[in-house]
Amino acid sequence: MPFSQPLPLQSGAAIRDYALSYETYGTLNASKSNAVLICHALNASHHVAGVYEGQPKSEGWWDNMIGSGKPVDTDRFFVIGVNNLGSCFGSTGPMHVNPDTGRVYGADFPVVTVEDWVDAQARLLDELGIRQLAAVMGGSLGGMQALCWSLRYPERVRHAVVVASAPNLNAENIAFNEVARRAIVTDPDFHGGHFYAQGVVPKRGLRIARMIGHITYLSDDVMNEKFGRQLREGIDLKYSTQDIEFQIESYLRYQGEKFSGYFDGNTYLLMTRALDYFDPARTHGGNLAQALAQTQAKFLLVSFTTDWRFAPARSREIVQALLDNKRAVSYAEIDAPHGHDAFLLDDARYLNVVRAYFARIAAEGVAA
Amino acid sequence: MPFSQPLPLQSGAAIRDYALSYETYGTLNASKSNAVLICHALNASHHVAGVYEGQPKSEGWWDNMIGSGKPVDTDRFFVIGVNNLGSCFGSTGPMHVNPDTGRVYGADFPVVTVEDWVDAQARLLDELGIRQLAAVMGGSLGGMQALCWSLRYPERVRHAVVVASAPNLNAENIAFNEVARRAIVTDPDFHGGHFYAQGVVPKRGLRIARMIGHITYLSDDVMNEKFGRQLREGIDLKYSTQDIEFQIESYLRYQGEKFSGYFDGNTYLLMTRALDYFDPARTHGGNLAQALAQTQAKFLLVSFTTDWRFAPARSREIVQALLDNKRAVSYAEIDAPHGHDAFLLDDARYLNVVRAYFARIAAEGVAA
Repeated sequence: MPFSQPLPLQSGAAIRDYALSYETYGTLNASKSNAVLICHALNASHHVAGVYEGQPKSEGWWDNMIGSGKPVDTDRFFVIGVNNLGSCFGSTGPMHVNPDTGRVYGADFPVVTVEDWVDAQARLLDELGIRQLAAVMGGSLGGMQALCWSLRYPERVRHAVVVASAPNLNAENIAFNEVARRAIVTDPDFHGGHFYAQGVVPKRGLRIARMIGHITYLSDDVMNEKFGRQLREGIDLKYSTQDIEFQIESYLRYQGEKFSGYFDGNTYLLMTRALDYFDPARTHGGNLAQALAQTQAKFLLVSFTTDWRFAPARSREIVQALLDNKRAVSYAEIDAPHGHDAFLLDDARYLNVVRAYFARIAAEGVAA
Repeated sequence: MPFSQPLPLQSGAAIRDYALSYETYGTLNASKSNAVLICHALNASHHVAGVYEGQPKSEGWWDNMIGSGKPVDTDRFFVIGVNNLGSCFGSTGPMHVNPDTGRVYGADFPVVTVEDWVDAQARLLDELGIRQLAAVMGGSLGGMQALCWSLRYPERVRHAVVVASAPNLNAENIAFNEVARRAIVTDPDFHGGHFYAQGVVPKRGLRIARMIGHITYLSDDVMNEKFGRQLREGIDLKYSTQDIEFQIESYLRYQGEKFSGYFDGNTYLLMTRALDYFDPARTHGGNLAQALAQTQAKFLLVSFTTDWRFAPARSREIVQALLDNKRAVSYAEIDAPHGHDAFLLDDARYLNVVRAYFARIAAEGVAA
């Protein structure tokens, strides 16, 4: 969907002649009251559910959650997936041409924030004729967008579903992001962010960034269970610093390699920076309850016990701040072994919590 | 101290014509019964205490622990600090010439293990005429050496003091090491480990390695307290992905830069690999108690509550395995906010525990 009106950004800059890639699933009802917006995290896209014709492996990233008969049931809801500005899966991003210069944006793509994404999503909804969302939902960075929606467009959100998220990044979260960014930026193939013209990709940096990411997505327990100290080959040590010795090394190198083949370096910088910047309490002297006073939605928060990236305590901060404002909040702390990754995995209790919550929303919708 | 006899290594290789840098503090008594060997961790050296003549800032890395009147009191003990083989602070390492080829070792320096270091240290003690240590002591990777001493030379160790350590690395520990190694190895200035001849240093990789290290040395709590979400300059955001915005970024970049100016890339690979490989239970089917059956020493174990690199639970594994063998074990779990770094810092309870333990050792020595 192309947008000709410039979008003003938090930074003071603006972006014009941009496009947003999106997909929809299910049918918008006559009253346009059954729309659910799905917000994605760092490396996902608008393709949230289903497979593309003739591509059986093209499953959407939240296909276990969204679809016919699934927790977010597309027989009842009209689900919208949208790729964020600055991402690399179809919406306008660093790989596209800057209309002001006629050259590829590269590092000149403006820094975008969670607030900017929400504004862009709101314009998409305007175009689709959707005034109010039955729900906005996301995990991790997507959960931040859902929370932001409830603040920025309180009257347009009936429910916000915030999964495995946080009211802001802590110092350690920012630290990991910064290491990943430095790995990309200092890769000689980064060329100051204008590597497209050179026909190269900062693959070394992207590999390192992804390896760091994977460590923080998994719990200690699941890593020990899945990999432990298992050697990749046989039982004899090879005594090498560069060859793969342990299974965990093999796994990380594989993930890094795969990622460096499809993800854009500038997008990685933008996405991690949006994470760093998100902090609704900032303009309220750090008082989250005060920041969330402007919300009107009902909330479902979900966290996972072994998530050390966005620990349950961070979700509880949001829950407490909402309760301080006497908002309707449901909160589920799921005892799952998989760390931050759990929000994308099949966990019966988790999926059932979301299913029950959306059944309630559907019932409201019928009543409305 | 030069050694002409080749040292056989765990890998099956051997190293010849090597030298070990060491320092001693205090006086060896007539019965040679008051020697304490200090083993260093990843990036430290033989310079454990005191300052060099005219260099007031050259404080040893464990100067708060070792010296006249300090917990390891050099008025009573003869303390030996030794730089490990493969390190970059004086002992033979990758920057030195391989006598077999006449060329700088670089990546050809043999992979060394904790066991190899202990063997080399034992030869140094032979040269110094010390048959038995009053104590061997180390933190982190140094603690692994202390534990290894008690296994490899049971009759030569009266006490082993193992601080902030673990019986082996878990998958997450190995994962962080591997990311750091990949950052170094894939730096174009690494040149397959033979960068000395090119007049370059894999600084980009070393910076990333050190930044990752620092994140794992600090606790979440101390990071939030020291840095939190504090901006480096003023209160306005700059909206940049590459400029420093948060204090934590500034801190990490500074640490990375400093480290890349003095540490050797090949040494980093060797040290992290030695960490990965250490696992005394491996040759006992994973049974640590069985592995530790051959120890004869008495033990002091110390861990720190917020250390998530080598969590207290890992020290408790060692304690339990020693108790299973009815060894004399003292264990202190220090409630300290500083994470893994705590083993190098001033914490009164920690220093007092070590002081009391060494006072006991001294009393024994007098009795003997």
